[in-house]
Amino acid sequence: MIATDTLVSFFLETRQHTEDICKPLEIEDYVVQPIVDVSPPKWHLGHTSWFFEEFILKPHKPNYKLFHEDFAFVFNSYYENVGKRVIRNDRGNLSRPGVAKVYDYRHYVTNEMKDFLSGEISAEIEKILLIGIHHEKQHQELLITDIKYILGNNPLLLKYNHSFSENPHQKFQREWIEMDEGIYEIGHKNSDEFCYDNELGRHKVFLHDYKISNKLVTNAEYLEFINAGGYKDFNLWHAEGLDWVKQNQIEAPMYWHNIDGEWHQYTLQGLQKIDADAPLSHISYFEAFAFAQWKECRLPTEFEWEAAQQNFEWGSRWEWTESAYLPYPGYKKAPGAIGEYNGKFMVNQKVLRGGSVATPNKHTRPTYRNFFQTNLRWQFTGLRLAQ
Amino acid sequence: MIATDTLVSFFLETRQHTEDICKPLEIEDYVVQPIVDVSPPKWHLGHTSWFFEEFILKPHKPNYKLFHEDFAFVFNSYYENVGKRVIRNDRGNLSRPGVAKVYDYRHYVTNEMKDFLSGEISAEIEKILLIGIHHEKQHQELLITDIKYILGNNPLLLKYNHSFSENPHQKFQREWIEMDEGIYEIGHKNSDEFCYDNELGRHKVFLHDYKISNKLVTNAEYLEFINAGGYKDFNLWHAEGLDWVKQNQIEAPMYWHNIDGEWHQYTLQGLQKIDADAPLSHISYFEAFAFAQWKECRLPTEFEWEAAQQNFEWGSRWEWTESAYLPYPGYKKAPGAIGEYNGKFMVNQKVLRGGSVATPNKHTRPTYRNFFQTNLRWQFTGLRLAQ
Amino acid sequence: MIATDTLVSFFLETRQHTEDICKPLEIEDYVVQPIVDVSPPKWHLGHTSWFFEEFILKPHKPNYKLFHEDFAFVFNSYYENVGKRVIRNDRGNLSRPGVAKVYDYRHYVTNEMKDFLSGEISAEIEKILLIGIHHEKQHQELLITDIKYILGNNPLLLKYNHSFSENPHQKFQREWIEMDEGIYEIGHKNSDEFCYDNELGRHKVFLHDYKISNKLVTNAEYLEFINAGGYKDFNLWHAEGLDWVKQNQIEAPMYWHNIDGEWHQYTLQGLQKIDADAPLSHISYFEAFAFAQWKECRLPTEFEWEAAQQNFEWGSRWEWTESAYLPYPGYKKAPGAIGEYNGKFMVNQKVLRGGSVATPNKHTRPTYRNFFQTNLRWQFTGLRLAQ
Amino acid sequence: MIATDTLVSFFLETRQHTEDICKPLEIEDYVVQPIVDVSPPKWHLGHTSWFFEEFILKPHKPNYKLFHEDFAFVFNSYYENVGKRVIRNDRGNLSRPGVAKVYDYRHYVTNEMKDFLSGEISAEIEKILLIGIHHEKQHQELLITDIKYILGNNPLLLKYNHSFSENPHQKFQREWIEMDEGIYEIGHKNSDEFCYDNELGRHKVFLHDYKISNKLVTNAEYLEFINAGGYKDFNLWHAEGLDWVKQNQIEAPMYWHNIDGEWHQYTLQGLQKIDADAPLSHISYFEAFAFAQWKECRLPTEFEWEAAQQNFEWGSRWEWTESAYLPYPGYKKAPGAIGEYNGKFMVNQKVLRGGSVATPNKHTRPTYRNFFQTNLRWQFTGLRLAQ
Repeated sequence: MIATDTLVSFFLETRQHTEDICKPLEIEDYVVQPIVDVSPPKWHLGHTSWFFEEFILKPHKPNYKLFHEDFAFVFNSYYENVGKRVIRNDRGNLSRPGVAKVYDYRHYVTNEMKDFLSGEISAEIEKILLIGIHHEKQHQELLITDIKYILGNNPLLLKYNHSFSENPHQKFQREWIEMDEGIYEIGHKNSDEFCYDNELGRHKVFLHDYKISNKLVTNAEYLEFINAGGYKDFNLWHAEGLDWVKQNQIEAPMYWHNIDGEWHQYTLQGLQKIDADAPLSHISYFEAFAFAQWKECRLPTEFEWEAAQQNFEWGSRWEWTESAYLPYPGYKKAPGAIGEYNGKFMVNQKVLRGGSVATPNKHTRPTYRNFFQTNLRWQFTGLRLAQ
Repeated sequence: MIATDTLVSFFLETRQHTEDICKPLEIEDYVVQPIVDVSPPKWHLGHTSWFFEEFILKPHKPNYKLFHEDFAFVFNSYYENVGKRVIRNDRGNLSRPGVAKVYDYRHYVTNEMKDFLSGEISAEIEKILLIGIHHEKQHQELLITDIKYILGNNPLLLKYNHSFSENPHQKFQREWIEMDEGIYEIGHKNSDEFCYDNELGRHKVFLHDYKISNKLVTNAEYLEFINAGGYKDFNLWHAEGLDWVKQNQIEAPMYWHNIDGEWHQYTLQGLQKIDADAPLSHISYFEAFAFAQWKECRLPTEFEWEAAQQNFEWGSRWEWTESAYLPYPGYKKAPGAIGEYNGKFMVNQKVLRGGSVATPNKHTRPTYRNFFQTNLRWQFTGLRLAQ
Repeated sequence: MIATDTLVSFFLETRQHTEDICKPLEIEDYVVQPIVDVSPPKWHLGHTSWFFEEFILKPHKPNYKLFHEDFAFVFNSYYENVGKRVIRNDRGNLSRPGVAKVYDYRHYVTNEMKDFLSGEISAEIEKILLIGIHHEKQHQELLITDIKYILGNNPLLLKYNHSFSENPHQKFQREWIEMDEGIYEIGHKNSDEFCYDNELGRHKVFLHDYKISNKLVTNAEYLEFINAGGYKDFNLWHAEGLDWVKQNQIEAPMYWHNIDGEWHQYTLQGLQKIDADAPLSHISYFEAFAFAQWKECRLPTEFEWEAAQQNFEWGSRWEWTESAYLPYPGYKKAPGAIGEYNGKFMVNQKVLRGGSVATPNKHTRPTYRNFFQTNLRWQFTGLRLAQ
Repeated sequence: MIATDTLVSFFLETRQHTEDICKPLEIEDYVVQPIVDVSPPKWHLGHTSWFFEEFILKPHKPNYKLFHEDFAFVFNSYYENVGKRVIRNDRGNLSRPGVAKVYDYRHYVTNEMKDFLSGEISAEIEKILLIGIHHEKQHQELLITDIKYILGNNPLLLKYNHSFSENPHQKFQREWIEMDEGIYEIGHKNSDEFCYDNELGRHKVFLHDYKISNKLVTNAEYLEFINAGGYKDFNLWHAEGLDWVKQNQIEAPMYWHNIDGEWHQYTLQGLQKIDADAPLSHISYFEAFAFAQWKECRLPTEFEWEAAQQNFEWGSRWEWTESAYLPYPGYKKAPGAIGEYNGKFMVNQKVLRGGSVATPNKHTRPTYRNFFQTNLRWQFTGLRLAQ
């Protein structure tokens, strides 16, 4: 059990941080949804509040009064167990509730929670509370990547602010970390520390000898791949990846713009020349795989990554692995809506390990399993080579 | 030539009226685009301003300085002659320029125009100015119908205001106006009064004897059609209409909601019970045709409508006619971008005559030819029977 | 009334001619459906037989035994009144009934009809019989154009035979036929001669002075349009036409192939160099319209065409007109399935007049109204200019 | 090295067996392609011949003359390395080359191969020859499943023959085979026996204790799942699976027909009542997963299956596993077109183990890795439970 004070602070800091992320926005930026994977910021603000209302306040706080009875309908996301969900790509069509109203909703929920948490917190509540806090942290990361998409896909190429640093350099040479064949323990130890259900079930995995790079692939390296015709060499690609490249006429990572022959990158600080030493970002799994093929290397599995991770720095990019997102041995979906969190996505997605410049504080860890479809690029995704 | 004062007042009143229409909106309502046919209100505000900037200020006002050089790109609509246009259904993805900025743009353009119009106004300028004013009036009508869509397709079913009256009654019995066979003159006389190029070329048309109703079809009549299974009787429909009904699962006019067995209609004043005596609204051409078949009548042609119109009241609904939207004899497209206004839409659309509760003052007239694709319903569209 | 012998001969000759058209085919050619508008030849053979079975033998011949009870399901086309129809683009998925079986079905129906027609033929039967014969003649034309598509869209560019002559020259100079303003009678006289219901209702139309070319537009003229960049000059096109050009990357008429810089045309006799003096063929309405714009002319209306037609030769190309396909004054759809023949297509299509090299003997006439959607090109479609 | 005689016999028997499979077909059945995953039988006949022509005769047989220079274009499938491929779902649009011609091509290639193999066979040739033979065996299986689709999706529900037995009973009780935790060797031993490259790289895998059923899931068990509302209980499904169920309105395995309340199954011997004791067939991975969830069990991984397989009978159904199709440690794609065989499909597919009633003799083995997308059902796919 965590001390109540600590828990409450953790909750309130998280609620506050979400709002801090939105400070640079104009009201209009909260509303739009340019692609289905990006949600309007006001939806994130509402949805993370709805989570606490739905799973804590409504069932557990005596005499709790819903802020607005239609909001569960508007701000639910993917939870089939909790009523009729809004079709996901309709979110950007709803001008109301307006931004001010959504903030009212947030503050109402935050205050009601504060009130509720001033009493005794049972183990059950603590568990759901922690899920809710980490759920909100995930949406903090999505807020940043979704805001980047909203501002960066506007022909005006708008800046978010002047301080968000996307491109930390890796000031060291590439080295290959050599790992020995053997049985490794993989997964979370189920200690007091929070983790998601998909990390549990610590188990043994046999790994053969392998090498893994201490350094993420850089923009400079990827530029060589582009210049060598990597996007046109079909031998490097999965069949499905090649179809994706052709249909979408992909020629570079997302946010790269070739202006008069010179490559630029849209960042949250605006358009900049490509930073050669920065870690590559905003690529799909298909591109990560093709690049590795071109280098006559491969992507690590998530097990190889976890077994070796203490030997290298990580956290600036979500790193595509070769592993499909599958349940660990003994994985059981929790009953009810909370159980929909992870298990139902365990097909046709790839695991990403690490974290990114958009990941909030205290959110990721060595056993954390992120996952996306193989074609998605709007997250800060990169890669690390293995052999 | 119209007196300069009159022209300037007409311009300024029109500019003001556009903004008046938007007064009930919250900022968020200006931004969204729920379907491709609906544009975000802020786009209408910007686009009508861009028209004056592009066709009057830029070419004719000495030393005119563009408000923002990217706005032509953002606010152009369908004018292939004037640079690269934005893909139409991207409008709802652009959070910026924000609403305040768009109003700044409007006011800048209005003031620059006011300044420009304080000098002498040539016949050429007068002509473009009048097109610009009537262009803006068309967008005033679209603003109302688009706002209705934005508010009415939100699960919160929001009200626009408490005074907009959509459903004027026709307090009289149906009578059949009998019209004689003969040659009629159709089209605008090309007097001083403004008209669009598609109305010009007054010409002779031979009409056979016909009868036309003095009254629009009412909600009560259409309800009979629904209750008689009209949507399911394939013999009443065009093949293409039937496909449209099936694919879109159409069972009633747009904005009708069946709540516990009783039909309601969403109006700009909110949800109301169906008003039996009000003229039917928000139907497609396909529905208008099927209803007329069911009544063993037909829709009038646009020529029949025009020849008979002084014998009945019109103006609360755009009335679908049986006429395809085609050029009048001798029609010539004007050169350049202004010429794109009408001619390029003269295929696969139907003519609507009259006007609607959303049509602004001084905008329509007996020769006015409105036109839409046969499946569209978000305008205040209705029908009048003929035999 | 037509003499029974003449009728029976007409029936039998028509039945035979359909089979003659198919003689050059291999069995496999009868089966495929490369695009939704093209039907497999075996389907045409079955469908034209089903028509006689459904509308004559089944209701009128005593003790008639259906050849196969599932064939009505397989060979019905668009008749909503007669049971569940097969989704149109499924036709090409059905390998059975096989070709031999379909011929058995044809011969069975032909023989039953022959037997039935040996008795007295009532006026009602005669009427349906003539519709059935002309229905089959329409499918003879479709057989030729569909076979052309099947063989010509195969990478082997197969020949149909060595004698089918698609490209008759017009050995005369262009002249403009001048027609006077006045009232013209349009439509079929409803004499003994067969016609479709959409031609009936002979009525008066007022035409203004106009000129119409005595000659169809040739390949040579159209080549000038292509070389002048006609496909890229957006001012020449309807907005919908331009979208069609862009989406389908249209650069030339259907069946034109640019081989090493020289234009060729696939014909039923195989690939040939473009015949400069032949009438243009296989163009959409959109292309016909854009070409006319480029020539600073226009397409005639169907009324202008009919009023002037005795002054020029016609019959090698279906000629696009500017007229939308609409009912004539007083048009009433016949009750039941026969009534579905024409009326339900009277929206969003254009009228074509004349006939083509694929039109069978005795099938077309000056009042004949053919109709297609504006983007279709697989028929032998061309154009004649008007002013 | 295998004795030349044995090799030649193996080749000739395989070639003959392909033709034997097609004996019950009518010519028309060879031509159609009702869905993109099903190829026309004549394409299979040509494609398997093209393989030997392209990879053996053309590069290795002196003075070999191509049968037809366009056939490589028509019969290539997915090999990007060997010229421009035909878009896959165009196969069903090609009526020619006709069936007789395709058999001529087959026999020409078979005879040329026979001639070529009468000389000395190098190790390199033997390797390609064996790949070609097994490639043809894979297409034998596809021929049977594609023929089933072609005949079974025809409203006439045609029989293939009277002897093909799809539904062998499992005449024993369900038992759970208990397997111990430990390291297991997985993959092919790379002996003289043929295998594909995706089975090589025999390697160690650590497995935890598990149980696996000795018996495939039966129709009777699946019927309970259907009757219990399994298709509507969203908690049982992956999110992507649920979308698939809804969009395609899936209510039962492929080929199941509910006739007057009683379930039937279309089989190659025609329509039959559901055989309760037969192993379930024609289900997607999504359905296999949902069924296992409902039983509170799971699917085995491919490693668990391989480690336990000698303890149970297998071979009547391809068994969906929980394993994603991924490369084994050390997997390297072979260079050139042959290398496109397996590696490029290693994303977003699931491994199936075992074999099916359609799998030809000598084609499968304990290490064989079949793979399909998660929504496909036209193969004889079933499942075995694990815990």
